[in-house]
Amino acid sequence: MKTPFPFSAIVGQNEMKQAMVLTAVDPGIGGVLVFGDRGTGKSTAVRALAALLPPIRAVESCPVNSEKTTDCPEWAELGSKKVMTRPTPVIDLPLGATEDRVVGALDIERALTRGEKAFEPGLLARANRGYLYIDEVNLLEDHIVDLLLDVAQSGENVVEREGLSIRHPARFVLVGSGNPEEGELRPQLLDRFGLSVEVRSPNDVAERVEVIKRRDAFESNFDTFMAHYSAEDTKVRDTILKARKRLAKIKTPDDILHDCAALCIALGSDGLRGELTLLRTARALAAYQGDKVLSRAHLRDIAPSALSHRLRRDPLDEAGSGARVNRIVAEVLG
Amino acid sequence: MKTPFPFSAIVGQNEMKQAMVLTAVDPGIGGVLVFGDRGTGKSTAVRALAALLPPIRAVESCPVNSEKTTDCPEWAELGSKKVMTRPTPVIDLPLGATEDRVVGALDIERALTRGEKAFEPGLLARANRGYLYIDEVNLLEDHIVDLLLDVAQSGENVVEREGLSIRHPARFVLVGSGNPEEGELRPQLLDRFGLSVEVRSPNDVAERVEVIKRRDAFESNFDTFMAHYSAEDTKVRDTILKARKRLAKIKTPDDILHDCAALCIALGSDGLRGELTLLRTARALAAYQGDKVLSRAHLRDIAPSALSHRLRRDPLDEAGSGARVNRIVAEVLG
Amino acid sequence: MKTPFPFSAIVGQNEMKQAMVLTAVDPGIGGVLVFGDRGTGKSTAVRALAALLPPIRAVESCPVNSEKTTDCPEWAELGSKKVMTRPTPVIDLPLGATEDRVVGALDIERALTRGEKAFEPGLLARANRGYLYIDEVNLLEDHIVDLLLDVAQSGENVVEREGLSIRHPARFVLVGSGNPEEGELRPQLLDRFGLSVEVRSPNDVAERVEVIKRRDAFESNFDTFMAHYSAEDTKVRDTILKARKRLAKIKTPDDILHDCAALCIALGSDGLRGELTLLRTARALAAYQGDKVLSRAHLRDIAPSALSHRLRRDPLDEAGSGARVNRIVAEVLG
Amino acid sequence: MKTPFPFSAIVGQNEMKQAMVLTAVDPGIGGVLVFGDRGTGKSTAVRALAALLPPIRAVESCPVNSEKTTDCPEWAELGSKKVMTRPTPVIDLPLGATEDRVVGALDIERALTRGEKAFEPGLLARANRGYLYIDEVNLLEDHIVDLLLDVAQSGENVVEREGLSIRHPARFVLVGSGNPEEGELRPQLLDRFGLSVEVRSPNDVAERVEVIKRRDAFESNFDTFMAHYSAEDTKVRDTILKARKRLAKIKTPDDILHDCAALCIALGSDGLRGELTLLRTARALAAYQGDKVLSRAHLRDIAPSALSHRLRRDPLDEAGSGARVNRIVAEVLG
Amino acid sequence: MKTPFPFSAIVGQNEMKQAMVLTAVDPGIGGVLVFGDRGTGKSTAVRALAALLPPIRAVESCPVNSEKTTDCPEWAELGSKKVMTRPTPVIDLPLGATEDRVVGALDIERALTRGEKAFEPGLLARANRGYLYIDEVNLLEDHIVDLLLDVAQSGENVVEREGLSIRHPARFVLVGSGNPEEGELRPQLLDRFGLSVEVRSPNDVAERVEVIKRRDAFESNFDTFMAHYSAEDTKVRDTILKARKRLAKIKTPDDILHDCAALCIALGSDGLRGELTLLRTARALAAYQGDKVLSRAHLRDIAPSALSHRLRRDPLDEAGSGARVNRIVAEVLG
Amino acid sequence: MKTPFPFSAIVGQNEMKQAMVLTAVDPGIGGVLVFGDRGTGKSTAVRALAALLPPIRAVESCPVNSEKTTDCPEWAELGSKKVMTRPTPVIDLPLGATEDRVVGALDIERALTRGEKAFEPGLLARANRGYLYIDEVNLLEDHIVDLLLDVAQSGENVVEREGLSIRHPARFVLVGSGNPEEGELRPQLLDRFGLSVEVRSPNDVAERVEVIKRRDAFESNFDTFMAHYSAEDTKVRDTILKARKRLAKIKTPDDILHDCAALCIALGSDGLRGELTLLRTARALAAYQGDKVLSRAHLRDIAPSALSHRLRRDPLDEAGSGARVNRIVAEVLG
Repeated sequence: MKTPFPFSAIVGQNEMKQAMVLTAVDPGIGGVLVFGDRGTGKSTAVRALAALLPPIRAVESCPVNSEKTTDCPEWAELGSKKVMTRPTPVIDLPLGATEDRVVGALDIERALTRGEKAFEPGLLARANRGYLYIDEVNLLEDHIVDLLLDVAQSGENVVEREGLSIRHPARFVLVGSGNPEEGELRPQLLDRFGLSVEVRSPNDVAERVEVIKRRDAFESNFDTFMAHYSAEDTKVRDTILKARKRLAKIKTPDDILHDCAALCIALGSDGLRGELTLLRTARALAAYQGDKVLSRAHLRDIAPSALSHRLRRDPLDEAGSGARVNRIVAEVLG
Repeated sequence: MKTPFPFSAIVGQNEMKQAMVLTAVDPGIGGVLVFGDRGTGKSTAVRALAALLPPIRAVESCPVNSEKTTDCPEWAELGSKKVMTRPTPVIDLPLGATEDRVVGALDIERALTRGEKAFEPGLLARANRGYLYIDEVNLLEDHIVDLLLDVAQSGENVVEREGLSIRHPARFVLVGSGNPEEGELRPQLLDRFGLSVEVRSPNDVAERVEVIKRRDAFESNFDTFMAHYSAEDTKVRDTILKARKRLAKIKTPDDILHDCAALCIALGSDGLRGELTLLRTARALAAYQGDKVLSRAHLRDIAPSALSHRLRRDPLDEAGSGARVNRIVAEVLG
Repeated sequence: MKTPFPFSAIVGQNEMKQAMVLTAVDPGIGGVLVFGDRGTGKSTAVRALAALLPPIRAVESCPVNSEKTTDCPEWAELGSKKVMTRPTPVIDLPLGATEDRVVGALDIERALTRGEKAFEPGLLARANRGYLYIDEVNLLEDHIVDLLLDVAQSGENVVEREGLSIRHPARFVLVGSGNPEEGELRPQLLDRFGLSVEVRSPNDVAERVEVIKRRDAFESNFDTFMAHYSAEDTKVRDTILKARKRLAKIKTPDDILHDCAALCIALGSDGLRGELTLLRTARALAAYQGDKVLSRAHLRDIAPSALSHRLRRDPLDEAGSGARVNRIVAEVLG
Repeated sequence: MKTPFPFSAIVGQNEMKQAMVLTAVDPGIGGVLVFGDRGTGKSTAVRALAALLPPIRAVESCPVNSEKTTDCPEWAELGSKKVMTRPTPVIDLPLGATEDRVVGALDIERALTRGEKAFEPGLLARANRGYLYIDEVNLLEDHIVDLLLDVAQSGENVVEREGLSIRHPARFVLVGSGNPEEGELRPQLLDRFGLSVEVRSPNDVAERVEVIKRRDAFESNFDTFMAHYSAEDTKVRDTILKARKRLAKIKTPDDILHDCAALCIALGSDGLRGELTLLRTARALAAYQGDKVLSRAHLRDIAPSALSHRLRRDPLDEAGSGARVNRIVAEVLG
Repeated sequence: MKTPFPFSAIVGQNEMKQAMVLTAVDPGIGGVLVFGDRGTGKSTAVRALAALLPPIRAVESCPVNSEKTTDCPEWAELGSKKVMTRPTPVIDLPLGATEDRVVGALDIERALTRGEKAFEPGLLARANRGYLYIDEVNLLEDHIVDLLLDVAQSGENVVEREGLSIRHPARFVLVGSGNPEEGELRPQLLDRFGLSVEVRSPNDVAERVEVIKRRDAFESNFDTFMAHYSAEDTKVRDTILKARKRLAKIKTPDDILHDCAALCIALGSDGLRGELTLLRTARALAAYQGDKVLSRAHLRDIAPSALSHRLRRDPLDEAGSGARVNRIVAEVLG
Repeated sequence: MKTPFPFSAIVGQNEMKQAMVLTAVDPGIGGVLVFGDRGTGKSTAVRALAALLPPIRAVESCPVNSEKTTDCPEWAELGSKKVMTRPTPVIDLPLGATEDRVVGALDIERALTRGEKAFEPGLLARANRGYLYIDEVNLLEDHIVDLLLDVAQSGENVVEREGLSIRHPARFVLVGSGNPEEGELRPQLLDRFGLSVEVRSPNDVAERVEVIKRRDAFESNFDTFMAHYSAEDTKVRDTILKARKRLAKIKTPDDILHDCAALCIALGSDGLRGELTLLRTARALAAYQGDKVLSRAHLRDIAPSALSHRLRRDPLDEAGSGARVNRIVAEVLG
C-alpha cells in the first residue's frame, strides 16, 4: 500500500476535514456523509484520515481489535495475546460486497458436524474501534446501508443463522461518499448519518495551483514533503487526544438546549436526531477548540453539517440546504 | 444489550403509549401499527415497552416459553425443566428475514434419515407469549406480513414441508412501525391490525428541550435517571396486571353495542373487524382505568386508534383519517 | 384448532350460504368464487362450512380418504385399514404454496435408487372428496389456478416427472375468495368456476349489532351458543343429505332447457358452460327445496350466481354484473 | 380417465372438425391452430379426436411407438417386443412444461459414469405417430413453440448435451388452441402451422339446446348415447382409412397449381408455404370426399383454413382474415 | 436426415445464391446475412448449399476436420487416422444454444483431478473448414453473435477457464438469416458480416407455379428430379473449384481501388471494411466468371451485397438501402 | 496468432497513436479511451501497439511478469526462475468476462482443506507491467469498470474471500474502445481515464486508397511489407525508450502550472484530475519530442486528449467537446 497523502496537506475543504476530526473526538456523533462532484478528493481525504487518527492498543490476534483478551469474542481462536499499538482501522467497503462479507459468514454445516462455532468474521469485525468507508454509498443496496446503520448505532454485530447466534462488538464511524447526481439515499437513511458535508472543486486559480504543486511534490519530492506534513498531522492528532479528555467536562447552558430545539423546529426537521446530533457535535467542537462552555458560536459553526441532510426538500427554495440552514441559523440565533 | 430508555420517560406520544399498554391488558386486541416520520422515537418506544411489560413464568429450556412442561411442543428437546420468571419476550423481526427464519426451519433430510423431527424454531417461537416488532413493516414482503397476521390471529404456527407437519403455539402481539411516505400496506393487511396510531415530532420548544434533557440525563446521569423512571414504569406495570384481572367483568350495555355499529356504518368502514376491535379495546381501557361499565367516553377515547386505518381514502377530505374519525364520533356519539 | 363459528349463526349473506350448500348437494356444480370487501366474513364462512358438511366414511390410513381399501392408490403404504367416519375435508391452500406442495412431491432419486414409488401426497390428495379453499385466489399464480381447475374438472391428479407417473383421485370443490380491487382473474379462469357470489358489509345497525352479539356470545358464552347453533347446523346437514338422494330424479321440461339457452344468448355469455352450470345448479336447488320438477323459479333464483362471472365487461353499463343478469332474467323469463 | 365425448356428437364446428380429420388423412399437412372464445369446446374436440383416430400397430415396450422392433431407437431398453394395436397417441403438453420434459432428459452424469446412454424420453417421444396438443399455445414460450415446430417439420427429435447426441423419430401433428385476446403468436410461428380454424359459441337457441341435451345425455344416459355415437365415429374413421389409400392417386391439373399461386399472390401472403399447404390439404379433402381429381371446389372449401393465418394484418379492413380469404377466393376463382 | 432440396433447383433468388457461391470461392469474404420474409426458402437454401459445396479431405477421427494428423489439436484423443473425403460441414446453431455448447466445454474438475485436458468440443469445432448457419440471427444474444464474429475473423477458437487454455482452428463462414421486422442487429455487428442479401417472395404466377412444381416433383418424383438437379449442382461445384485456383491471379488496376474508396465515401459508410470486402468479393466474382482482370462491372454487380448493410439509416430516403447503393454506384461508376 | 498489422503502417489517426505512445513513455498517465465509429481500426491499433512496445525482462514462470524472483507473489508456485525478455503484455478483456476471470479465482475449499493458498491468477495478473484492452468498454458492467479503474490506480490487485487475502502487483494501462452511439460511460468513470481520443473514417479518397493498398500488401506481399514497417516501428520504440529516461528531468515553469489550472477552471471541469493529467501528459510529450522545458505548445497539443472527456455536456453547444477544448485553449493560452 502506498503511503497516503497527508491529511493536513489537503488544500481547503475545511468543513469536511472538521467533520472527520470531530468524529475522531467523539465517535458517538455517528457517520459522516461526504457529497460532492467527482475528483474532489473525497477518497483521498478518507485515506488521509487513516494516517491521522490516533493509534489504538489491541490484542494482536483479536479479530475485533479488542484492547483486552477478556474483551475478545468467545468464538475467536486467539493466537498471540500480546497487546500492541496499531493504527486506528479504516476499512473499505467495496461496492458489491455481499452481506456475508460485511457481517461475517457462519458455516452452519461445520458448526453442526464438528460442534464448533465456525464463524469467519467480516468487514464489520475489522472495523471495530475504527472507521468504515463506503465509496458511492448511494449506489449501495438499501438493506446493506440499513444493516450498517443498525450496527453502527447499536455498536454490536449479531449474526443469526438457523438458531445459531454469534455476536461481537462493532463500534465504528461510517464515512460515506456520494455523488448526489447519481442516485439519492432515502431520507430514512440520510437521517441516520450524524453529519453531512459537501465538497466542491475550488474555483480559484491560486488554490488549484497549490493543489497541483502539493500533489507534484508528494510524487517527485516525497521525503521532504512528508517530513513537513507528518509533523502537521501529528499536531492535529494531539489536539484530538486532548479534546477526548476534555469532552465529558464541557458545560451546556439551558439556553443552548433551547437554541437547539428552536433551530430544529424553525428548520422543520423531522424527529429529534437533529438536535441531539447538533448538541453532541457542538460539544466535540468546543472540546477540540479548548473551550469549556458550549456557546451559540459552536452551534452556528456546526449547524450546517449536523442539520442540512435532515431538511425536507423545498422545490421553491433554490438555495441548497446548507444555505437554508445558515439563513435560519442567522434568524434564530442572531 | 444496552438498558433501554424507560417507557414512562418518553415525552408525549400518549396515543401510542396507550395503545401499547392496552394490548398488554388484552393481547386479543391484535397488533399495533405505528405510523410516523423518521426519528420520532418509534423503535425507542418498542424497546421501552419490553422493559415495562409484566414478566412471565416459563420453563427454562422451552423454545416457546411455555409455562408448564406439558405445554412445551413435543418436538422440543428439553433441557432444564425449571420454571423461571423471565421478561415478556419482545422479538425484533429484521428487514429481509427469510420465511425459514421467521417460522422455523424443518430439516427434511435429517428427519427422513434419522427419523427425528428436526425442527429449528424461528422468531415466531421466540415471540410466543410476547411481542413481535417489525420496523418499517411497509417494506416487508406481502406474503410475510400475511403469514405473520395469520399466525397472530390463529395463535398457532404450523410448518408443513413435504408431508411433515410441525406446530407450536405462537401467541403474540405484532407491533409494526412504518413511514407512510415510503410505501403503503394493502388495505387487506391494514384491516388485520387491531390498532393504529400516528406519532409526530413535537412542535413545542419546551417539549423538545425536555426530550433532549431526558436523553442527555439517560446518557450522562444514568443511575439517578433510571432510579426515578423505573419506579414510574413499575406503577404502569402494576396497573396493567390489575386491569387484566378486571377485564372479564366489565359490563357492556346494549346501547354501547348499538353505538359501535352506528359509528362504523357512519364511517363506512368495510367489514366487521372495526366494531369488534372497538368494543374489545374500549373494554381494555375501562379495565385499565378501573371502570366497571363500558361507556361512550371509552369509545370516544379509543375510536381513532381502533378505526382510522379502516377508512377508505377520501381524496376530497383533506383532514387525515384520525380527524375524520373524531368528527364522526362527535356526530354519532354526541 | 379452535371450534369454528357455526354456519347457521352467520347473519345474512344468503347468496353465499346457498351457493355453498348447493355444492354440497351436487359437487359436480364446480367451484365457488366469493368476491367481497375485506372483513365480510368470507373465511369465517368457509371454516363454518367445514363443520356443516356431512361426514364421509373413509379408510383410516388412506391418504386420499377413499371409502374402500380397493380405492386407495397403489402407491400408498396403508397402515390401519379400518373404515371410519371423518369430517368432510376442507383444506386450506396457503398463498405461496409451491406446485410440489399442491400436487404432491415425487422423489425421483429415491424411486430410481430403491425402486420404490416415492410419492409424498400434496394438498390435492388431502382435499379428495371435500373442499379446497383458496383465500385471495386473485393473488395466486395463473398456472397454479389453471392446474387446480384442471384437476377439479377431471377429478384426477396426475403427477409426471421424468417418465414416472403417479395418479390419484382428487374430486373436490374449489372455494376461492377474492377482493376484486386487488387484481382480477383472467376471464378464461373465471369461466371455469361454477358459481360466484358477492358479499358486502351490512348497512343496517340492527343487523350489525346482531353480528357483534353473536360473536361476543361465541367468545364469552361458548357452550350455550354452540348448543343452539349446532342443532341448526344439523338441520341444514340433514336437508343436504336428503337433497342428494332426490337429485337424480328431478325432472327437466324441455322449455327449461330452451330458457337456459335463451338466457345465455341474451346475456352474450361466451361458450356453453353457462347453461350447463345453470341447469345443474337449478336442479340442486330444486332438490334442496324438495321440488320434483325444475321450474323457471329455480332458474331465476340461481341465475346471478351461475352466470354473472361469465359476462363480458360492459363499460357503458354502470350496474354490476349481478344486476345485469337479473334485468335480463326478467326480460327473458318474465 | 373418463371416456371422452364422441367426436361426431359435437354440434356444429364443422371447419374445426374437417381440419382435424384432414390431418388424420395426411399428417404431412402440419399442425392445426384452433382459435376461439373460452368454453367453445376446443379441448373437448381434441380429446374426442383421440377416440376417433384409427389405431396404430406398435411394439409394446417401444418408447416411441415404433411398428417394428428394428425401428425402435438404439438407446431404448426394450421389454416386451410383442406388436400390439394401440390407440393413436394424443399427448397433452401442459402449460409450463420444461424443455427437458418435452424433448427428454439426458443424464450426463450417469452416461459418463456407467457408460450407458441414460436418456429419459419426453413428451415428443410419446407423441410419435400421433398428436401433440397444446392448450393456450399463445401462452407458451417462443423457444418451446419454435422447438416443437422444428421437430414437427423434421420428424426427428435430436437431443444434444455436452457432446452426447440422442435421436428418435418424432412424427406428430401439433394441435394448438388459443384465445387471440390473450396474446398473439409471432407471424413467424403462425406461418409454420398448416391450418387454422376459428370456433365461436353458436347464437342459435335450438343449436345450443341440442348441445345441452347431448351433454346431458352423455352424463345421465351414457350407454345409449355412446352406442349411437361410437357407430358414427367408426364411420368417420373408416372414411379416413380409405382416404389415406386414395391420397397418392389424386390428380392435380396444371390450372389448379396456377390457381393456388394466383390466390396467394392476390392475398399477398409471404413465402410459399401458403400454396404448398393449400394444395396438400385440398388433395386430402378430395381423397376424403372420394374424388379423383383436384378441383377449384376443393380449393375454395379449404382456402380459409389453409391461408387465413398467413395474411398480414390490415388495420383498414374490418372483416376478419377468414372473410378476406373468402372474398379474394371469390374474385380469383370465381 | 432427408436429402436436401438441390441448390440449383431453387427458383430465382439469384443474389442470395451468388453470395453463397462466392463465399465458397473465397471464405475470407466473411459471413453472409440473408434478410427476408418468412417462408422465402432461406433455410432451404442453406441446406441446399451443404450438398453443393465441394467435399473436403479430413482425418476421420479429428474433431475439427483437419486434413493432416499433425493439424489435429493436441487435446484430441484421435481414433482412426485415416484421411477420408467428407462433405463440407454445414453446422446449425440452434436458437438458445449455450456458450458452452458453442465454444466447447472445459471440465475443470476432471482436468484438475486426473490431469487430463478434459475438453468437449462444441459447434465451432465441428464447423471448422465449413459453414455455420444461424436461423433468425437477430434473435440471438449479442454476446454470442459477438463471440461468433470474433472467432470467424481470427479463425481460432480459444477457450479459457480458470487458468486452463484450449485452442483449435475454427475457420468457417457464418450464414445468418433474419427477419428485419423481428428485431435488428446492432450496426456494430452488421458491419462484421461480409455480405448481405435480401430475399422476397416472387410476385409472378409462373415463377410461383414453377416453385410448387419443383417442390411437388421433389416429393412425388424424387429420383428423376434428383438425377437432373444433382448434375446441375455438380457443374456449379466444378466452377467453384476452378475459381479457387484462379483467385490469386486476378489483377487489380489502380483505378479499381480508387473506385472502391470513392464509392464508399459517396455512400458515407463508416470504417474501411466496406471497400476491403467489396474488393475481395469482386475478385471472387471475377474468378467465378473466368475473368482475369477486375473491372467496374464486377464492382457494380457485387456492390449491393457488399455495402448495403453498412449504410447509416436515412429516414428521408424511402428507397431501401439496396436501391441507394445502386443509385450511388450509377453516379460514381457511371 | 497472426502477426499484427504494424503500428507505423496505420494511415492517419495521429491523435490516437500519440496517446498510445505517450502512455508508453509514462504509464502513470492512466488509461486511454478510444471513441469512434465501427471499422475505424481501433482494435487493429491496439494489437499493433502490442508489437510496438518495448519488451520487458521477466522471470519466466512468474504469473505477474516480475523482473526479479523476489518480486514474484508469495502464493505463486514458481517453475523456471530464468529471467527472459518478453513482449510487453497486451491482454484482451473479453466482453462478458466474470469477476473471477478478471481478478483471479480463490479456491476457498482447497485453501481450507489442504492449507494451501489456492489462487488461480486472472487477467489482471497477466496484464501486470503492460496493457489491458477492453473492446466496447461502454458495454461492460459498471462494477467491473470500477474495479479495473481502482486496480489500475492503486497498482495492486487484492482478492479477499471469506477471510483469505491474496494480493499481487497489477500495474497496467487500460485501453478502452467504445462507440458513443451504443451507450455511455458514467461521468464518474470517464474522469478516471487519463486520455481520450476520437477516431473517424477518413473522407479523402487518396487516404482511403492508401489504407486499402497497405492492407492488401500486408496480405499479399507480407514479407516486403513487414520488412519496411518493422523498421519504422523500431524507430518509434527507440524514441519511447529515450523519452522514458528524459522524463524525470523535464522542467515545469510556474506559469505552466498556472495555465493548467486556469484552463481547467475556464473549461469548468470538475475535480482536479484534469490539471494533473494535463501536466503529466504534457511532460511525456516534451520528453518524447526531446524538449527539456514544458511549454504552452505542449499543453495546447495535448489538451483535447487530456480534457475533453472531463467536460459537462452542454446541450446548447453543438460543437463536440474536442472543439470546445480547442476554443477555450485558444482563449486562455492565446
